[in-house]
Amino acid sequence: MTTVYSSASMSLDGFIAYDDDNPGPLFDWYQTGDVEMTTASESVAFRLTAHSADYLREQTARLGALVVGRRLFDVTDGWTGTHPWGVPVVVVTHEAPADWNYPGSDHFHFVGGVAEAVARARGLAGERDVCVAAGDIGTQALEAGLLDEVRIDLAPVVLGSGRPYFTGGTSWMLGEPTTLIQTARVTHLIFPVQGAAAR
Amino acid sequence: MTTVYSSASMSLDGFIAYDDDNPGPLFDWYQTGDVEMTTASESVAFRLTAHSADYLREQTARLGALVVGRRLFDVTDGWTGTHPWGVPVVVVTHEAPADWNYPGSDHFHFVGGVAEAVARARGLAGERDVCVAAGDIGTQALEAGLLDEVRIDLAPVVLGSGRPYFTGGTSWMLGEPTTLIQTARVTHLIFPVQGAAAR
Repeated sequence: MTTVYSSASMSLDGFIAYDDDNPGPLFDWYQTGDVEMTTASESVAFRLTAHSADYLREQTARLGALVVGRRLFDVTDGWTGTHPWGVPVVVVTHEAPADWNYPGSDHFHFVGGVAEAVARARGLAGERDVCVAAGDIGTQALEAGLLDEVRIDLAPVVLGSGRPYFTGGTSWMLGEPTTLIQTARVTHLIFPVQGAAAR
Repeated sequence: MTTVYSSASMSLDGFIAYDDDNPGPLFDWYQTGDVEMTTASESVAFRLTAHSADYLREQTARLGALVVGRRLFDVTDGWTGTHPWGVPVVVVTHEAPADWNYPGSDHFHFVGGVAEAVARARGLAGERDVCVAAGDIGTQALEAGLLDEVRIDLAPVVLGSGRPYFTGGTSWMLGEPTTLIQTARVTHLIFPVQGAAAR
């Protein structure tokens, strides 16, 4: 059964990157262990603790498609055509990019809204999971009731300012974490979404 | 030996209360268990899980003094003279309140700056710990290098907007949690402060 979730590394003050999109020390946990993990992208490899490796492998083995915003797509230049997780990517944008054509770029899909993007990603993922990028897109998906889970890789750092995981709006109740894994430079947390909070 | 720490219940999006100072579901964990815990204030009592009760009793047994901001003092009317934890309270304010005089109000001290307030609280606490309220005052203390630990009672809720635990500024590195307790409606986390983060 497909689980739709948002996911990102996050600071204690709720940011997923500095204002300039640099993740800074939020990504330290990807390079802090002894377990090598390669990805579909030749330029991206990790050195994880055993706990983080198990967590990440289980998550990516179940992953069927990604939903991201246009900012992330532009910042990474669409991962030059191949996302590290090697799955189709649905980009929420008002206008598909012109002249963007890398090997693998046919796995990228451009749609106009979050609900449509999640539906498209579900279709592409089949029985596997859909990961929605945190930030604007993830928050829109949460508020539209499209998320089953919120996943946070909580890094023990305070950024001071940056791009938030949750971009504001209504209040939401979540359940206690169904997964809680403490390892070097990160606490992996999975919260099930319950519903809008009463005031 | 005295430990100086900030502490508050916090949402996943980093808020310690709604904009109107109502903590909303952030405080659910105080009333969600079977263990009764009374306080120095007749009007404040808790019903905690066993895990939360152990955590809170250990913390309050070591507590010697509090540092709070003028906002919290005003919002609570200075706890009408008796803070629930029954310890001296140092209030950071440019002007001490006039005509504020409840029984117990001689345990309240009014000083002009955060560094001075922490020093005063250390003197009042003796060998015991000093708790600095999260928000403006806690962030100023963090940035002044006055905190040994950041303590977060992380509630599984997204508020959408509100008053932040960390009010911004420079970046700080913390260590992995030395305490991590998962129980109903809260994850109790204690992070040791390491130092300013490099960019």
